[in-house]
Amino acid sequence: MISTATFSESKGKLKKIAILGSTGSIGQQALDIIRALPERLQVIGLTGDKNLALLDKQINEFQPKMYFSSAKPDSSYKAEFLSMDEIASHPEVNFIIVATSGNAGLSPTLAALKAGKAVALASKEVLVMAGEFIIREANSRQLQILPVDSEHSAIWQCLQGEKNNAKRLFITASGGPFYHYSQSQLHKVTAEQALRHPTWKMGPKITIDSATLMNKGLEVIEAHWLFDFPFDSIDILIHPQCFIHSLIEFVDGSMKAQLSFPDMRLPIQYALSYPERWPNSELPRLDWNKIQSMNFYPVDYSKFPCLKLALDAGKSGGTYPAVLSAADEVAVDLFLNNKIGFTDIAIIVQETLEQHKNVANPSLEEILTADAWAREYTEHFIPHHHTEYKQRSNLRPEI
Amino acid sequence: MISTATFSESKGKLKKIAILGSTGSIGQQALDIIRALPERLQVIGLTGDKNLALLDKQINEFQPKMYFSSAKPDSSYKAEFLSMDEIASHPEVNFIIVATSGNAGLSPTLAALKAGKAVALASKEVLVMAGEFIIREANSRQLQILPVDSEHSAIWQCLQGEKNNAKRLFITASGGPFYHYSQSQLHKVTAEQALRHPTWKMGPKITIDSATLMNKGLEVIEAHWLFDFPFDSIDILIHPQCFIHSLIEFVDGSMKAQLSFPDMRLPIQYALSYPERWPNSELPRLDWNKIQSMNFYPVDYSKFPCLKLALDAGKSGGTYPAVLSAADEVAVDLFLNNKIGFTDIAIIVQETLEQHKNVANPSLEEILTADAWAREYTEHFIPHHHTEYKQRSNLRPEI
Repeated sequence: MISTATFSESKGKLKKIAILGSTGSIGQQALDIIRALPERLQVIGLTGDKNLALLDKQINEFQPKMYFSSAKPDSSYKAEFLSMDEIASHPEVNFIIVATSGNAGLSPTLAALKAGKAVALASKEVLVMAGEFIIREANSRQLQILPVDSEHSAIWQCLQGEKNNAKRLFITASGGPFYHYSQSQLHKVTAEQALRHPTWKMGPKITIDSATLMNKGLEVIEAHWLFDFPFDSIDILIHPQCFIHSLIEFVDGSMKAQLSFPDMRLPIQYALSYPERWPNSELPRLDWNKIQSMNFYPVDYSKFPCLKLALDAGKSGGTYPAVLSAADEVAVDLFLNNKIGFTDIAIIVQETLEQHKNVANPSLEEILTADAWAREYTEHFIPHHHTEYKQRSNLRPEI
Repeated sequence: MISTATFSESKGKLKKIAILGSTGSIGQQALDIIRALPERLQVIGLTGDKNLALLDKQINEFQPKMYFSSAKPDSSYKAEFLSMDEIASHPEVNFIIVATSGNAGLSPTLAALKAGKAVALASKEVLVMAGEFIIREANSRQLQILPVDSEHSAIWQCLQGEKNNAKRLFITASGGPFYHYSQSQLHKVTAEQALRHPTWKMGPKITIDSATLMNKGLEVIEAHWLFDFPFDSIDILIHPQCFIHSLIEFVDGSMKAQLSFPDMRLPIQYALSYPERWPNSELPRLDWNKIQSMNFYPVDYSKFPCLKLALDAGKSGGTYPAVLSAADEVAVDLFLNNKIGFTDIAIIVQETLEQHKNVANPSLEEILTADAWAREYTEHFIPHHHTEYKQRSNLRPEI
C-alpha cells in the first residue's frame, strides 16, 4: 500500500537520484526529465548493463558521483565504481529509480528500502517475483513504492484523496499490435512485427510482453501488491488508443480515470514530483481536437494465453510468479532471436509452470532458487523438446 | 472554492435534510436516495410549487416536520407550514438541497448559508445570478457549496486530494439532441422534439437549455464560481455518450476524468455522502461490456449562439448573468408553449442583454432588479416585435 505520510516531508527539496538501468528505455526517459528540471532533480548514481557506449555518454553528461557497469571500472571517470546495492543504499542518494530488466532490480530494491530510500519502481519483475517481501519491507519502514508504469501511476493518481473509497481497479491495455489477429495469424508473427508497438515507445522485452498480453498479467500482479487489492477486484479493459491509462471504481459506482498522451515521461515525472505535480513544457498534452473516439473491448483470454497464465500464477502465489517471470524472460529472448515462434512463448511458460513444484510462503532464497530453476529448465527444455513444440504449434512456419 | 475542512466533522452523523423543490426532477431523485438510505438520511422539510398532488404524496410518505407549498397551508398535515427561507435556516435542518427552478433558490440559499447549513446546490440560477455573493457568504463562514450538477460533481470529485495542482477544467456536454442539425433544421425544431434528450432524464427547462447549449454556458459560469477558475481556463468538450462527466488537466499535463452511468442520483448521493462515498445497490454501474466507444468533438459556437451569449455574460459579469438567466427562462417558457421557435431563444436573450444597462459589482438588490427588469422586458418584447422575430429567423415555419 502507498501511504501519503512520508513524502510530504521531502516537498520542495532537491531529489538526489540514482537510476538503476539508466541506459534502458525508462532510464533514458528519466534522464530527459532530470535534464529538464535541474533545479529539482540531480543525478547521483547511474548504472548500465550492456549498452556501455550510452552509459559512457550519460556519465560524461550528468557527472554522477557513483556508477556501476557490467564492464570493469573505468579510471577516466571521476565517479566511484560501486555495486547496485551499494548505490541504492548510499547516504548521498535519497531517491532510487529501479529501471533494470529481469531480476536484476530485486536485490537493490530491497537494499534501498532497508536504507530508508524512496523507490520509484519501473521494473515489474521486482513485485512479480517478491511482492510480499518488498511491500512488507516498505510498510514496516513506512516507505512508499512509487509506481512508474503508466497503468499503476494512473491508479495511484486516481486514488489520491480517497483511497479508502475504491472498490475495483480497471487496468487498461492497448491490446498490442495483434489484438485482432486470428489464431493462425498469431502463429506467424515475427519478432520484427512484434517490436512495432502501435502507441508506446518501450524496450524490446516489454514490447513483446505487450503483444502477448503477458505484460498485462504482470501488471495485475504488480497492482495487487502495490494497492492491496484482491485479484478478483482487478479487471482488464482493452483500450487501443492508450489515452485512459487505468480507472478506479468507487463503492458508489462512480469511476475516476487518469488520461494523458501516451508518453512514459509523464508517469516518471509524477513519481519524481509526488506529492506535487510540476509543470514541464516538454511533456505533451492530450489534444482534444484530435481525439475523435476512444474504444473499449473486453479481453479475449483464449487468444492470449500468457495473460491467463500470469493471472493464475499471481492467484496461486508462492514461487509461481517468479517462475512465470523467469520463464517468460527466457522465452521472449528466444523469440527475439528467432529461435521459437510467437505462440510458443505461452507454451514454454505454461510447461515450465506445470513442471514447477510450488513453494508456499517462500523465503527470498526460495524465490531466487525458483527463478534460477525456471531459467535453467526453460533454457534446457528447448533443444530437447524441439519436435514437441513443432507439433503443438504446428502452424508456426519454422523454429 | 470548496474546502474539505468543515465536513469531516459531520462524518457518520444522520443528515437532516430539507429539499427545496422536492417535486422537480432533482427533488424526486433526491428522495429516491433518501428512501434507499434511511439510516443515514432523514427528510425534515419539503417544498413544492406547482405539482401539489405530488407534494401531498411526498409529505404523506416522508412525514417531514415542515413544508412549504404555493397553495395555502393544509391543516391535515402534521407538518408546520413555513417559508422556504425559514425552512432553509431552521435549527432542526442541517443539510439543504436547493433544487428549485428559476430564481426561487437564491434567497433560501443565502438564508441557509447565513444559518451555517450545508448547501447542496442543484439550481444553476443561484450561482449564475449571484455567484460572487453566494461564494463570499460561504467562504466567510467556511461553508461549502456542494455541487449537484453531474459536471460540477465530476470536477469536484476529480479535485479531491490535489486541488492545488489543477490547471484547466474540461466540462463535457452531450451536445443535446440537435448537435448535428443544420441551421435550417434547427429553425424547425419543436418543443416536443427538444424535450427528448438522448441521455439524461431531466426537467423541461434544463432539457431545452441542453438542446440550445445555454445549459453548458450556465455551467461554465457556475464552475467559475464554485472552483475559482478563470473563464479562459474552462473548456467545453462535446461527448455525446455522457459517460465522462467532466475532466481536469493538471499542471504536468496529466488529466483526471470522472465517469459513471448517466444517472443524476449518483451526483446527488455524492453531495449527500461527501466526504465519504456510500454503497447503494440501486445506483447503476457503467457496463464496460456495452461501452464500445466514446466520442469527442469540439464545440460549434456558430450553431449554438446561446452558449456564446452565456460565456460573454459570465466574462462581463455584473448584472449580465442575471439578465441572461432571466431572459432565457422566459424565452424557454415561450418556446415550450409554442409561442416562439427554437432559434428565437438566442435572439430574445441576445436582444435583452443588448438592451440591458450593466451594473458592475452589483448589490443583491441590483441583481434582483436586473432579473425583474429582464423578465418584464422579455415578456413585453414578444407581442410588440412579433414581425421582427419573424424576419430575423425567417426559416422558422410559424410563431
